[in-house]
Amino acid sequence: MKPNGEDEAPPAGGPWEECFEAAVQLALRAGQIIRKALSEEKRVSTKTSAADLVTETDHLVEGLIISELQKRFPSHRFIAEESAAAGAKCVLTPSPTWIVDPIDGTCNFVHRFPTVAVSIGFAVNQELEFGVIYHCTEERLYTGRRGRGAFCNGQRLRVSGETDISKALVLTEIGPKRDPATLKLFLSNMERLLHAKAHGVRVIGSSTLALCHLASGAADAYYQFGLHCWDLAAATVIIREAGGIVMDTSGGPLDLMSCRVVAAGTREMATLIAQALQTINYGRDDEK
Amino acid sequence: MKPNGEDEAPPAGGPWEECFEAAVQLALRAGQIIRKALSEEKRVSTKTSAADLVTETDHLVEGLIISELQKRFPSHRFIAEESAAAGAKCVLTPSPTWIVDPIDGTCNFVHRFPTVAVSIGFAVNQELEFGVIYHCTEERLYTGRRGRGAFCNGQRLRVSGETDISKALVLTEIGPKRDPATLKLFLSNMERLLHAKAHGVRVIGSSTLALCHLASGAADAYYQFGLHCWDLAAATVIIREAGGIVMDTSGGPLDLMSCRVVAAGTREMATLIAQALQTINYGRDDEK
Repeated sequence: MKPNGEDEAPPAGGPWEECFEAAVQLALRAGQIIRKALSEEKRVSTKTSAADLVTETDHLVEGLIISELQKRFPSHRFIAEESAAAGAKCVLTPSPTWIVDPIDGTCNFVHRFPTVAVSIGFAVNQELEFGVIYHCTEERLYTGRRGRGAFCNGQRLRVSGETDISKALVLTEIGPKRDPATLKLFLSNMERLLHAKAHGVRVIGSSTLALCHLASGAADAYYQFGLHCWDLAAATVIIREAGGIVMDTSGGPLDLMSCRVVAAGTREMATLIAQALQTINYGRDDEK
Repeated sequence: MKPNGEDEAPPAGGPWEECFEAAVQLALRAGQIIRKALSEEKRVSTKTSAADLVTETDHLVEGLIISELQKRFPSHRFIAEESAAAGAKCVLTPSPTWIVDPIDGTCNFVHRFPTVAVSIGFAVNQELEFGVIYHCTEERLYTGRRGRGAFCNGQRLRVSGETDISKALVLTEIGPKRDPATLKLFLSNMERLLHAKAHGVRVIGSSTLALCHLASGAADAYYQFGLHCWDLAAATVIIREAGGIVMDTSGGPLDLMSCRVVAAGTREMATLIAQALQTINYGRDDEK
């Protein structure tokens, strides 16, 4: 993360403090389970494609997080990756809602590629209140609370101020659809950014951790088609509280359910990236 | 890395023990300098393209490593990234030769993207004897010595046994040339692997650390056009000692000076990847 001479503790208190603390504790517990599972053989099944894998650990961790939160906050609602895959609707109502990805980077997890995270976001009145992301193998806890800043292991996060694509490090992910037409568009988008002389493009296999790198200033922009609201919810708060921009690939406001995003340290950079991209249609999370 | 129930200490002794120990100590010292530099502003200049950056720290670290080794081993020869950029010839003679990349992942380093390594390889009679790679921010020391195994922080490394591309996690890097024809070939190679239904392709911005992931079994294959002997030398020993294969993209034996490589956990996988690739011509390190 960008050094800044600060090492402030995140401020305590606020209306959703108890929920935030619960999210932190559950992310750390989930991280322990995931680290242990990384040392064991595992059974893998595919969801929509070979690139869309799910393991027993995804189910175990999601079950733990939701059951613990349901006990403590029985009136709250949940949107979560494996529940959605099993047919639960993704609808963001005004009720307090938890948006959970038990293992972001499942393909990495299956291969024991050490870039794997737990992501827990929380929204009230359809507005994101906080996000907690835990990098399980590097034991980095990223948090952001609306109006209260973003932190990694207690150190304040700030995005990069870069506005020039030709000086940018850009992150993206391939997305789960691998039909020839989708791959052509994915590669064509990467080509456009490399033609614009981006310093580099990185693909690390975890949307949430890529977005955390953006929040920390270690990258200047991120875009993706084919991610889900549980990849975006927690990271969006963290990026905004680190001073960054999260928007739709059309250049308009972020739509959490639209399966696409551009994020950057500056509005200028986000707009340039959005203008460079061709749309890849992944439908909507709330219409599946 | 793949768990294996072992936690063997690397065996001591051997004819190049003193050189190996010097490499480990210098990699750790260089890593400290790089970590400190990551917390400071830095001056950047470009070498061949915007994607090919160099910093004061690259020069400082290379100078430190070479001057210390020259003092202790005055008859040895050196091939090193920044010296080569300044015009020194890359020729591997039978003399004991150190092959050094002071900062692999300079673009990451410039952006403070935390995937940066020091790489020190050592060859005698044109045969690689040992390799030492230090992941500066995660403080992981990878070592391999011919006939004596490969280790990360004392834990033995073993490659994956995967032979099927459709179950593989594949790593690559974009390479420094960004002209439209080169980019087309780079993207077309990635498309071929995705069409072959590889689980995923990752681009992390450091060839040596990608090769270390391969050695640890966290990925199944790696290929690249446009890397150099200092990216390959140390990692080649580590992969071979972890049970893996390092070969030319033609499917023939590795040529350290050919600026291209395929590596995999198994010969079957390496051959399949080599067959899938179109060649991108980057010339030779020993003809520049």
